[in-house]
Amino acid sequence: MKKLYGVGTGPGDKEYLTLKAVKVIQQSEVIFAPNNKGKNMALDTVKDFIKGKKVIFVDFPMKGVDKTHYENAAIIIEKEMQGNRTGVFLTIGDPLVYSTFSYLIENIEKRNIEVEIVSGIPSFLASAALVKKPITIRGDRFILCDKTFDEDILKKCDSIAILKATSNKEELLNKLEKNGFDYTYVKRVTLEGEESIIDKNKILENKDYISLILGRRGKHD
Amino acid sequence: MKKLYGVGTGPGDKEYLTLKAVKVIQQSEVIFAPNNKGKNMALDTVKDFIKGKKVIFVDFPMKGVDKTHYENAAIIIEKEMQGNRTGVFLTIGDPLVYSTFSYLIENIEKRNIEVEIVSGIPSFLASAALVKKPITIRGDRFILCDKTFDEDILKKCDSIAILKATSNKEELLNKLEKNGFDYTYVKRVTLEGEESIIDKNKILENKDYISLILGRRGKHD
Repeated sequence: MKKLYGVGTGPGDKEYLTLKAVKVIQQSEVIFAPNNKGKNMALDTVKDFIKGKKVIFVDFPMKGVDKTHYENAAIIIEKEMQGNRTGVFLTIGDPLVYSTFSYLIENIEKRNIEVEIVSGIPSFLASAALVKKPITIRGDRFILCDKTFDEDILKKCDSIAILKATSNKEELLNKLEKNGFDYTYVKRVTLEGEESIIDKNKILENKDYISLILGRRGKHD
Repeated sequence: MKKLYGVGTGPGDKEYLTLKAVKVIQQSEVIFAPNNKGKNMALDTVKDFIKGKKVIFVDFPMKGVDKTHYENAAIIIEKEMQGNRTGVFLTIGDPLVYSTFSYLIENIEKRNIEVEIVSGIPSFLASAALVKKPITIRGDRFILCDKTFDEDILKKCDSIAILKATSNKEELLNKLEKNGFDYTYVKRVTLEGEESIIDKNKILENKDYISLILGRRGKHD
């Protein structure tokens, strides 16, 4: 039977690949990666381990992606896996955290291709490691969200990571401040240009797409 | 200068170690691990990589751990790192997710020992990979908590992981049901005896300490 591994490649640095990710990549015959204008960050991370392997870019539009695109992706993957081949679909971070792969699983499985998922280190954990602040200590509640969040949620939690916060950073930082949360903006974690910033004005000046905001209820006693 | 790495060993299977974890473990002269009656799960995970290295168990009581215990732990670590040694403090999962290591960082740094954190795969990601359900898709909010949670939080989120839910599972499952969340209990993920259970009665019968509950808002349309 054909088998497709959904492999998380972590935040970017190849040292954050798991032994399992390296093993399944090395054993696979074909490597799939979402097409980002002929490039892909996950592919950069694994480049030392895919020499000589067939690499297939799968197209997804940046905006307006719908069911049809996932169906088409599954058709391409099935075609490239003819015969009893083993393949890997690469995703940055973890395959089940804000990833295209979540939308592909059912489409792949209904084509009689077995799916196995190999977890990766998500960027919010690598960012917490960089700034050496806990995501959660005993009794804490942590929220993970993308782009924005309902302010009320901060009253119910101690810690937050906001991914893909590029267009509305001022609004988000204001919400955090108002609710007594300290914050750090982390860009390009584990990659060249890695930086953590706590100054509000400097955060607002930054436009890097590979970035996130960590927030944590301050100890103001 | 002395350097202590806080290393996450992931959910248990050694294949979920990162390349970075293996590297820093191999380069370190002394390995610290919390003492659990002379055993430690993180130590089992890395056993192939620590042959011939000095291993120090650090005691923390299971209940009633306080500042003094972290101070004492830091004193032991400092003593064992005399000379310019490099050490590793092992934690299961990730060092910044409900881990003892978060409480040690300041205590270690004030003893002029540099601290670097190496992220690990948390058990909730490995569990989601096992059951092949997303933690988050576009627009989702995910909550991570330990032991219990305020029911209102479910109204603000789409997905939840409850760690260390051993004594009050029925109450938690009832809260999830009442709010339209599907759930899966996952025990011993990536280890021998790994199992995912969706039947409520079977979940309530299970007493494994290495377990968690994943919940996700059901699609009831």
